[in-house]
Amino acid sequence: MSDRVKEILSWYSSDNPGTRTNLARLLNHGTLSGTGKLVILPVDQGFEHGPARSFAPNPLGYHPHYHFELAIEAGCNAYAAPLGFIEAGAAEFAGRIPLILKLNNHDVLHDDKDPLSSVTGSVRDALRLGCVAVGYTIYPGSAHCTTMYQQLREIAEEAKACGLAVVVWSYPRGSALSKEGETAIDVVAYAAHLAAQMGAHIIKVKLPSAHLEQAAAKKIYDSEQIPIKTLPERVRHVVQATFNGRRIVIFSGGAKGEEKVFIEEVRAIRDGGGFGSIIGRNSFQRPKPEALKFLKTVIGTYSGEIP
Amino acid sequence: MSDRVKEILSWYSSDNPGTRTNLARLLNHGTLSGTGKLVILPVDQGFEHGPARSFAPNPLGYHPHYHFELAIEAGCNAYAAPLGFIEAGAAEFAGRIPLILKLNNHDVLHDDKDPLSSVTGSVRDALRLGCVAVGYTIYPGSAHCTTMYQQLREIAEEAKACGLAVVVWSYPRGSALSKEGETAIDVVAYAAHLAAQMGAHIIKVKLPSAHLEQAAAKKIYDSEQIPIKTLPERVRHVVQATFNGRRIVIFSGGAKGEEKVFIEEVRAIRDGGGFGSIIGRNSFQRPKPEALKFLKTVIGTYSGEIP
Amino acid sequence: MSDRVKEILSWYSSDNPGTRTNLARLLNHGTLSGTGKLVILPVDQGFEHGPARSFAPNPLGYHPHYHFELAIEAGCNAYAAPLGFIEAGAAEFAGRIPLILKLNNHDVLHDDKDPLSSVTGSVRDALRLGCVAVGYTIYPGSAHCTTMYQQLREIAEEAKACGLAVVVWSYPRGSALSKEGETAIDVVAYAAHLAAQMGAHIIKVKLPSAHLEQAAAKKIYDSEQIPIKTLPERVRHVVQATFNGRRIVIFSGGAKGEEKVFIEEVRAIRDGGGFGSIIGRNSFQRPKPEALKFLKTVIGTYSGEIP
Amino acid sequence: MSDRVKEILSWYSSDNPGTRTNLARLLNHGTLSGTGKLVILPVDQGFEHGPARSFAPNPLGYHPHYHFELAIEAGCNAYAAPLGFIEAGAAEFAGRIPLILKLNNHDVLHDDKDPLSSVTGSVRDALRLGCVAVGYTIYPGSAHCTTMYQQLREIAEEAKACGLAVVVWSYPRGSALSKEGETAIDVVAYAAHLAAQMGAHIIKVKLPSAHLEQAAAKKIYDSEQIPIKTLPERVRHVVQATFNGRRIVIFSGGAKGEEKVFIEEVRAIRDGGGFGSIIGRNSFQRPKPEALKFLKTVIGTYSGEIP
Amino acid sequence: MSDRVKEILSWYSSDNPGTRTNLARLLNHGTLSGTGKLVILPVDQGFEHGPARSFAPNPLGYHPHYHFELAIEAGCNAYAAPLGFIEAGAAEFAGRIPLILKLNNHDVLHDDKDPLSSVTGSVRDALRLGCVAVGYTIYPGSAHCTTMYQQLREIAEEAKACGLAVVVWSYPRGSALSKEGETAIDVVAYAAHLAAQMGAHIIKVKLPSAHLEQAAAKKIYDSEQIPIKTLPERVRHVVQATFNGRRIVIFSGGAKGEEKVFIEEVRAIRDGGGFGSIIGRNSFQRPKPEALKFLKTVIGTYSGEIP
Repeated sequence: MSDRVKEILSWYSSDNPGTRTNLARLLNHGTLSGTGKLVILPVDQGFEHGPARSFAPNPLGYHPHYHFELAIEAGCNAYAAPLGFIEAGAAEFAGRIPLILKLNNHDVLHDDKDPLSSVTGSVRDALRLGCVAVGYTIYPGSAHCTTMYQQLREIAEEAKACGLAVVVWSYPRGSALSKEGETAIDVVAYAAHLAAQMGAHIIKVKLPSAHLEQAAAKKIYDSEQIPIKTLPERVRHVVQATFNGRRIVIFSGGAKGEEKVFIEEVRAIRDGGGFGSIIGRNSFQRPKPEALKFLKTVIGTYSGEIP
Repeated sequence: MSDRVKEILSWYSSDNPGTRTNLARLLNHGTLSGTGKLVILPVDQGFEHGPARSFAPNPLGYHPHYHFELAIEAGCNAYAAPLGFIEAGAAEFAGRIPLILKLNNHDVLHDDKDPLSSVTGSVRDALRLGCVAVGYTIYPGSAHCTTMYQQLREIAEEAKACGLAVVVWSYPRGSALSKEGETAIDVVAYAAHLAAQMGAHIIKVKLPSAHLEQAAAKKIYDSEQIPIKTLPERVRHVVQATFNGRRIVIFSGGAKGEEKVFIEEVRAIRDGGGFGSIIGRNSFQRPKPEALKFLKTVIGTYSGEIP
Repeated sequence: MSDRVKEILSWYSSDNPGTRTNLARLLNHGTLSGTGKLVILPVDQGFEHGPARSFAPNPLGYHPHYHFELAIEAGCNAYAAPLGFIEAGAAEFAGRIPLILKLNNHDVLHDDKDPLSSVTGSVRDALRLGCVAVGYTIYPGSAHCTTMYQQLREIAEEAKACGLAVVVWSYPRGSALSKEGETAIDVVAYAAHLAAQMGAHIIKVKLPSAHLEQAAAKKIYDSEQIPIKTLPERVRHVVQATFNGRRIVIFSGGAKGEEKVFIEEVRAIRDGGGFGSIIGRNSFQRPKPEALKFLKTVIGTYSGEIP
Repeated sequence: MSDRVKEILSWYSSDNPGTRTNLARLLNHGTLSGTGKLVILPVDQGFEHGPARSFAPNPLGYHPHYHFELAIEAGCNAYAAPLGFIEAGAAEFAGRIPLILKLNNHDVLHDDKDPLSSVTGSVRDALRLGCVAVGYTIYPGSAHCTTMYQQLREIAEEAKACGLAVVVWSYPRGSALSKEGETAIDVVAYAAHLAAQMGAHIIKVKLPSAHLEQAAAKKIYDSEQIPIKTLPERVRHVVQATFNGRRIVIFSGGAKGEEKVFIEEVRAIRDGGGFGSIIGRNSFQRPKPEALKFLKTVIGTYSGEIP
Repeated sequence: MSDRVKEILSWYSSDNPGTRTNLARLLNHGTLSGTGKLVILPVDQGFEHGPARSFAPNPLGYHPHYHFELAIEAGCNAYAAPLGFIEAGAAEFAGRIPLILKLNNHDVLHDDKDPLSSVTGSVRDALRLGCVAVGYTIYPGSAHCTTMYQQLREIAEEAKACGLAVVVWSYPRGSALSKEGETAIDVVAYAAHLAAQMGAHIIKVKLPSAHLEQAAAKKIYDSEQIPIKTLPERVRHVVQATFNGRRIVIFSGGAKGEEKVFIEEVRAIRDGGGFGSIIGRNSFQRPKPEALKFLKTVIGTYSGEIP
């Protein structure tokens, strides 16, 4: 086991050996094994946005095995999905890639300014499906945040007792925030901190912009001259806000965009001390050979092979 | 064990020896050990106000171990924080300072005139992390007070059965109160009494102003000529309102302010018969040497070393 | 994943993906990863025979970390031990080698013609310690077999629901059997079959002799001319008796003996279609360099590198 | 659905529709579907007598799939086996033949004058494996009958609540009975009645001899001149003793014997109003083509095709 | 916190921070605070031997407060007793000395060659009474060892989840052992190892003699020339047998004897690397001033003040 992985595990000193074992499995799988960096393939967009919006660009993605294969072939650290997609392949791909069961999900047939995801799986599901972790999404800023935080609390307590790791998607949204504010640096840093305070082992946030949403926060960013102009600076600030880098923070890729820009962002995450990326649509919406090439570039950037 | 601590413990005669043991641990730790006075370091501001607002003034505070160390070196009686911060250091600092796990927390990404904190930890979490007490915030005056009171009831019942102490932050807020009313003497005294009636062992309120918020109360304060002009008088009134001084009431420091004023307030708390202070931002937002010096002055004031 | 491992996993088609994942972890770890062969280091002899008898020949073995290290360095598939030994290293070695928590154990301070092991761990212990499997010993032939079978049933049901694998040590003993009968070919084949019928995923038996213990069985072995003269023949028969080879059967090495004989036996297990060895005293009672060399030979024999 | 099956189901009027549905599945499967007659293949002999004694005569039987295939190809109503054999094929053969999970079993490595089977499976196992019924063996006459009756009670209660059928093997044995008495007509009729009183839906007994074991019973058989001379008479008496034919009673074949005698017995069961046979060793110990021919004759006899 | 205590806590890496906190409380209390040595006062003799045999020599001991006071005044690390004695003083002495609730006890109104203690308290009792640990006695060698080991397993699992420490009294007794064998070095080392394997944090055994009880063990002690002639050698061997010194092993004093001999034994425990003593009758059966002087000598010997 690499020194870096040992160091990362040492941060989770209140967790039992089971949880530490599953964190080690995540960190020691795929091309980035042992580097302390993570690239995770998440495929919950069929639930979140609908199947056609998600899979029509590359119809192979309708097949649940496609994503297992993509994650394995690309050398990802893990594959994350809701119950149905995991159930549809967990037996066939048992032992081939760490799995993260997303325990809550949200669809847009009913949308809401103040979203509340539905719990669609359980810790026991995660155990019977051989997952290393459960995933849970919170929407700080939503009027329903209390409900989500409390569900997370119960899930996290049970998961930890069973030796699973807890991955929290922390996505600010809701009537209290402007659209721009959802990725404002003060808001993203706050969202990452909230997830860490609720006991998450791995935290996923969106890449922050230089926008400052909250007046009270802006005052401090200005007076303390917190460096947030460049993306690496903002990543560094989010990592600092997450227990001074003692919790794993990864960043999501957002909608499919230009590859060059995306790799630039990955480099910024790496240079800012971020732990990796969770890349959905940018992976599975491309033709497979292109996706593999793309993920190879991302992973190579994290490993340092690509400068 | 000092006579004063014995006397204080005697007020909690319905509690089991476990809870009394944990109260004793709180009272017998740190520089104020045995005096019956308490200075507690609370660090929930990252959750409540956001990480940058809380820690940018002294970036060492981003590191979860910093606060354990600060509380230990300053000779505080206890350190209070949400789940994540406690989990991030409880193993490394096991046995070095009494811990209070804050079981509910509120963030300002979604704020509300009538706030409702989210439950983010459990009594079982407090046991597995070795805490002496659980903390819980109520907002008397909020439209959601019923929910909060009921959650508190359940948590307190379980905590007491497990031998833990219950610390209640009682902060009047909500659409029914004016901003000034939140610290009005009638409201603060009422809030302290409410917490005591709900079974809190230790009650934390804000320092009250001489303002009187409620007309019906004002009538009595006037007719009975309750002395509330000076801060010591108001502290004495709050202590009286809290079972005639038979429950531990401590006062919070609020935002970082001028040191001289702060120490003046501490002296008022002491002279009014208050039991101590819970000091967050005024501690961890200063450079550490300054913070230690500051807390030494506070503690010295409570111990009487400083007149 | 190798075709052989896929084939083996296919036999466990009633098991959930969690259990199959943990079986895959066992089969895909160490030098024999992917071959479908297993060499496991078990260290329960301190409990079963006493510490001096177990560890005095190589006093490094008193230290619980020694066995984790030995299993890792030797390239074993897994390390199996009772609760105490696992607890004493599971955090330090998290993620470095699959662990099997032995859930019952027997000591010889009180021995009995009809032995009954004590349950000394739980499925929840296995989860919190990050184990891939639970282990349980039955003594077919003991007057207490009903108790043991029923405990196994409960443990196996819970373990399977939680996605763990079940390893059964099936050691015929008891007043109904002669000493020679404990390793008689009819008895060992029967014991392996019993464990499989009770739902074990992996079955550990002793190497059988050509002796036939039960008159009713002897009649059939004679009339059907079942070949049991050579050790490979007997291994083949045990494997056949265990669902025609569709359950993993491994063989134990017994007391420390001559290396040449031992390797001969390993070759016989391999040639008879056995799945591997579980080697305790022959490993940890030798000086470490010798033990590593010895295990390398065993593993090389299974992998086919050594003919 | 045939009138006969409707009639049979009407006898189980206290059972919930789930249990009746599963009884219907049993009665409406295989060649005898709809006739109200049953031929069941049970393969628990590997557990009960050992693998070689059971499968060496026809080594295909070591493979767990063989028995599923045999039962399906022969047109049996159901296949009954212990946990391991069912787990080893339930997924592959899902939906192809009704399954009965035998929940207790007994081995002869430790035998006893007063036998007590071990519980080796659960109602929840039966549900997860898709079984229509659970099977349980009682040994009336054993000193341990109280334990067995109580286990049966609990299992039957749970099975019925879950909509499963309960099949009871009622085999008189124990120190209180002579060897001849185990199949005495008074004893067998009594055993069948006991199982029915304990709530069995389907009862399996051995074919009774004309011997009368119990003096007190003999007096009545003599005085009332109960006809028990011929096998059909004895079968009719057993059926009568089992709630006047309102519970399904089937008869077991015992050790492999001469085919002609066996078919004669089947005819007697049919003519005496018995509901069918449960045929293990006489089926799976023959070469498959022979077994299929044999079972075809048995089934043809029950259906009436063969007079 | 001293380096030695930090080192000791590091051995319990699978335990949650709660358990580590309570171990720290034990190690950091009394005169030996921080040294890694322990002197514990146990008073269960009233239950185990009867009140007159226990307390008539010093009738102050009939009063439950006497023992709290004795332990506090003598500077012991902890006081251990059954439920009644703890309940009779836990409130009065809350927070003054760490308490260990003995969860099983045995009386001699009914004695037995193969003793089985009765469970007389619970983990929840320990929590409500403010204890740092639960105590449990096993009698390896007793025919009832299976029952005791299984009770211990359940208690230890619950205690650890609640953040309590587990102290095991491991006293070989029973029909399988000679009287001399109960303190034979091979047996005592074995008993200490068994308790550690069952997950005890602190293990209490009797001081071993040079006798060797078990023939199979004797062979190894002879061939490996394990040094067991002197008491320090034997203590060292027991410590080694208990996970190479990575579990706390303390020794009991036995019946009241000559002080000089006793102190000699304490010196041997210290010099052999033992962690301390648990001293009952030798403490509370003396007049208090004498007892305090005696315990001061013991403690001074452990601290090294007395050579």
